[in-house]
Amino acid sequence: MTSYQMSPVMGQMMSQPLLVSGILEFAAKHYPHSEIVSRRIEGDLHRYTYRDCELRARKMAHALAGLGVTMGERVATLAWNGYRHMELYYAVSGSGAVLHTINPRLHPEQIAYIVNHAEDQYLFFDLTFLPLIEAVAAHCKTVKAFVLMADRDRMPQETKIAHLLCYEDLMAASGDDYVWPLFDENAAASLCYTSGTTGNPKGALYSHRSTVLHAYGSAMPNALNVSARDTVLPVVPMFHVNAWGLPYSVLLSGAKMVYPGAALDGKSLYELFEAEGVTFSAGVPTVWLGLVNYALQNNLQFSTFRRTVIGGSACPPAMMDTLIDKLDVQVIHAWGMTEMSPLGTAGVLQNKHLALPKELQRKILQKQGHAVFGVDMKIVDDDGKTLPWDGVTYGHLYVKGPWIISSYFKNEGGDVLVDGWFPTGDVATIDEDGYMQITDRSKDVIKSGGEWIGTIDLENIAMAHPAVLQAACIGVAHPKWDERPLLLVVRRPGMDVTRDELLHFYDGKIAKFWMPDDVVFIDALPMGATGKVQKNKLREQFKEYKLPTA
Amino acid sequence: MTSYQMSPVMGQMMSQPLLVSGILEFAAKHYPHSEIVSRRIEGDLHRYTYRDCELRARKMAHALAGLGVTMGERVATLAWNGYRHMELYYAVSGSGAVLHTINPRLHPEQIAYIVNHAEDQYLFFDLTFLPLIEAVAAHCKTVKAFVLMADRDRMPQETKIAHLLCYEDLMAASGDDYVWPLFDENAAASLCYTSGTTGNPKGALYSHRSTVLHAYGSAMPNALNVSARDTVLPVVPMFHVNAWGLPYSVLLSGAKMVYPGAALDGKSLYELFEAEGVTFSAGVPTVWLGLVNYALQNNLQFSTFRRTVIGGSACPPAMMDTLIDKLDVQVIHAWGMTEMSPLGTAGVLQNKHLALPKELQRKILQKQGHAVFGVDMKIVDDDGKTLPWDGVTYGHLYVKGPWIISSYFKNEGGDVLVDGWFPTGDVATIDEDGYMQITDRSKDVIKSGGEWIGTIDLENIAMAHPAVLQAACIGVAHPKWDERPLLLVVRRPGMDVTRDELLHFYDGKIAKFWMPDDVVFIDALPMGATGKVQKNKLREQFKEYKLPTA
Repeated sequence: MTSYQMSPVMGQMMSQPLLVSGILEFAAKHYPHSEIVSRRIEGDLHRYTYRDCELRARKMAHALAGLGVTMGERVATLAWNGYRHMELYYAVSGSGAVLHTINPRLHPEQIAYIVNHAEDQYLFFDLTFLPLIEAVAAHCKTVKAFVLMADRDRMPQETKIAHLLCYEDLMAASGDDYVWPLFDENAAASLCYTSGTTGNPKGALYSHRSTVLHAYGSAMPNALNVSARDTVLPVVPMFHVNAWGLPYSVLLSGAKMVYPGAALDGKSLYELFEAEGVTFSAGVPTVWLGLVNYALQNNLQFSTFRRTVIGGSACPPAMMDTLIDKLDVQVIHAWGMTEMSPLGTAGVLQNKHLALPKELQRKILQKQGHAVFGVDMKIVDDDGKTLPWDGVTYGHLYVKGPWIISSYFKNEGGDVLVDGWFPTGDVATIDEDGYMQITDRSKDVIKSGGEWIGTIDLENIAMAHPAVLQAACIGVAHPKWDERPLLLVVRRPGMDVTRDELLHFYDGKIAKFWMPDDVVFIDALPMGATGKVQKNKLREQFKEYKLPTA
Repeated sequence: MTSYQMSPVMGQMMSQPLLVSGILEFAAKHYPHSEIVSRRIEGDLHRYTYRDCELRARKMAHALAGLGVTMGERVATLAWNGYRHMELYYAVSGSGAVLHTINPRLHPEQIAYIVNHAEDQYLFFDLTFLPLIEAVAAHCKTVKAFVLMADRDRMPQETKIAHLLCYEDLMAASGDDYVWPLFDENAAASLCYTSGTTGNPKGALYSHRSTVLHAYGSAMPNALNVSARDTVLPVVPMFHVNAWGLPYSVLLSGAKMVYPGAALDGKSLYELFEAEGVTFSAGVPTVWLGLVNYALQNNLQFSTFRRTVIGGSACPPAMMDTLIDKLDVQVIHAWGMTEMSPLGTAGVLQNKHLALPKELQRKILQKQGHAVFGVDMKIVDDDGKTLPWDGVTYGHLYVKGPWIISSYFKNEGGDVLVDGWFPTGDVATIDEDGYMQITDRSKDVIKSGGEWIGTIDLENIAMAHPAVLQAACIGVAHPKWDERPLLLVVRRPGMDVTRDELLHFYDGKIAKFWMPDDVVFIDALPMGATGKVQKNKLREQFKEYKLPTA
């Protein structure tokens, strides 16, 4: 903790905490007629206004109080993007309790682990997840009841779940005279566990202050640029780092909100985009692949969709080109982490770039982006020495800011900060205009004879080969160089390529010493719950692999 | 002070104060090459980068420490919009002292009054104001020295000022190893006195927190919408509510900044807009009148200028039409007050307005605008009862938010809040979509037989008459109706209009009982330092006026 100088003269401004409920109150009062449209699990479209949402969120907060939920207690959700989930975002946090969003793609054992670790008092879930809840309910020791987010007529006739409540029953029984409480803006508002490729998942515990500041920062013109002229469809799930904060930043902006529910295939998304006049969206590259392919295969254009944020992992350059050049959709590359609420950078151009030729602009947009106001960055070497911003030198990426964690929930993992900075675990370059580009994960980078070899570049080149479906590059022990790159490749069905052909494919594209020492063809890469390759498993599997150069 | 519930669970996010120095540090590190261009008093253009600005601000902060300035002490400026003034914005506030910007248009006696009231320790001034400083210096009891913001060769050979220092001498003598201190974000950052139409000027004392939150709020897409693609020329002076916060919001956005210095005539502005590629500006209607007339008279268009914020007083509809329809410049009507940092509302359209015909859109844009996220509003009757938002009912406008004052500096004027709300002194309507329209000042509204008559409408109609140069409407005592409207008119030189012609001009444009009871032609209206008509002087002058209807 830094010790501050004290000023003898304080400003004479209103003292008002930055609270999550303040966003919804502002939205409902100042944009009462802005719409929220949700594709429900039931299949139909539900639509209501910000004002309706605030009333129902307030009634649900009242219901939570009736269930005995007190300040600071955790209330969990297992749900898609929809209006009831949004009501819970505000009802839980707004009442002073802590919203714990759970990723349903986690293994049931992991779900039970984090429910118990978080000591969730109630768990709200969508109909889709009834079988999952039936499987884990008995293992969730702290949960007093499970609440099905549906009408009474959707409640199961029989269930193994000991305590099962109906969301709309709670709503109907609740009065509308609840008043949002005021409290310290540093109080916890929501909790999100990292996917945890090694060890158990760890929780990032956001505060009301961090959530509101992140909402300001992420809505800015240099970031997501959300305005009252937009219609926003968040494809990124509300169980994934609070849908990158959109349930907050969209509401304070007065935009129309469209929630897609569980139907995230290309056709369903395209039809919803067109029907509701979506102008702006956000999601991971995999989802855009489905949508882009659907549009191209059916020779379709978007009538209103003009901007999308792509994050989670890097947007393949070919996909960016297709979106911009063929579909007239501007791509904002964004980068962040669960530990960062999540937004760290966004890729938008500056004044001086506007006159550049398209190809040079595209090179800038392909980087992970520029720090959003509120986030500071630096790159350091293994000794913690700050490295220059020249677009070439790469080092461990450290970040700092009011919406970045200082420690994990219950202090799992102990002290995580280094001199007040959060080590992201990424390796990156930063250029002289502040654009950051991830070159690798710190733990994946290959250290060969004192030099670093970035595996992302090696993988991208391999994947550009027509016969390669997937590629991963890992470091394998080498007697002379400490580590050397080994390329693991999954071939496209029905296509063939040899080791030597693949290695020749790198000629002229990389520095000589980056050339993989060998190629191994395998059937599949091990994937984690969030769609990332589990390189730790690959390293374990090939720990004893003998390189031909060794 | 509201008492808060305490949460037993705090978020685990980085604790980082929102400080003015943080804006400059971010700007210099993440947008090091963004430009700041200033037309100097010397006549030439000065240009440097954000990084240069940060270094010089830090050196000046070092110099202030050397002069013995300590935290919380006030340091004054009397200066135009330029790079040295901006350096002081950050050097003074960033070091923990309080920046006191003085309006040079105030009467010298008022300037001496506020310097003494603020207990300014140093006063920095532009060459333009040397005669003014020579006139008031002896009356400024607390000022240890006056600093001329110029090079050594501009220093006067002889002066009556006892302690006169040279800005560039201080800069040259200062080291660059100063580190911005960290302190409580509620510490005072800057001080701005209201023009004070009645009584002495009162000071609004902004905090670091309020300044940073206002910078976030005002840069948002629904407000000024400042991005790294912009080139911004603030015409609104830095001595007028911190140039509406632009020295903060522009820097955090990475935009190019262009400061016009003292040359604010239409020709000078037009040439600077074109030479530097200005895309966005902000100022009061009077300034736009000069620029618009220059452009029209010379049949000129703007190459890059596409958006402007107009505030301070209402933008005449005809000027808005000319800017939008003839010069292709989007107009954002903004409203605020010194007591509000200043931004309260901004007039931008919402999603559902985009399909409206131009005339209906224009009607929305002519209102004062929609609350910026962070500001709450309500309208109340004389008894404090909340009135509906229907666009017709009008009441006293009250505001609330983290960048609105809770009291004046040194508690002049005592308690100013009513149930936690700041009474703006304006009378307004708010429509169902949250757009606010000022209809009058609370003290100017005419109360006739229990009904309110808004004087702004009456004045606007009169001023639409070709023979009317200026018009003001005041309430005059009436035996039956308590008060009735009296219209005071300044005719255009060489043009004539009679009382009856003017009254007929209102036919069909207003409710019958709003019709002024009489018209008096006068030579000039009394104007205050900020260009507003001093209606209190008119009411005093016409206190005994006998209306023909009385």
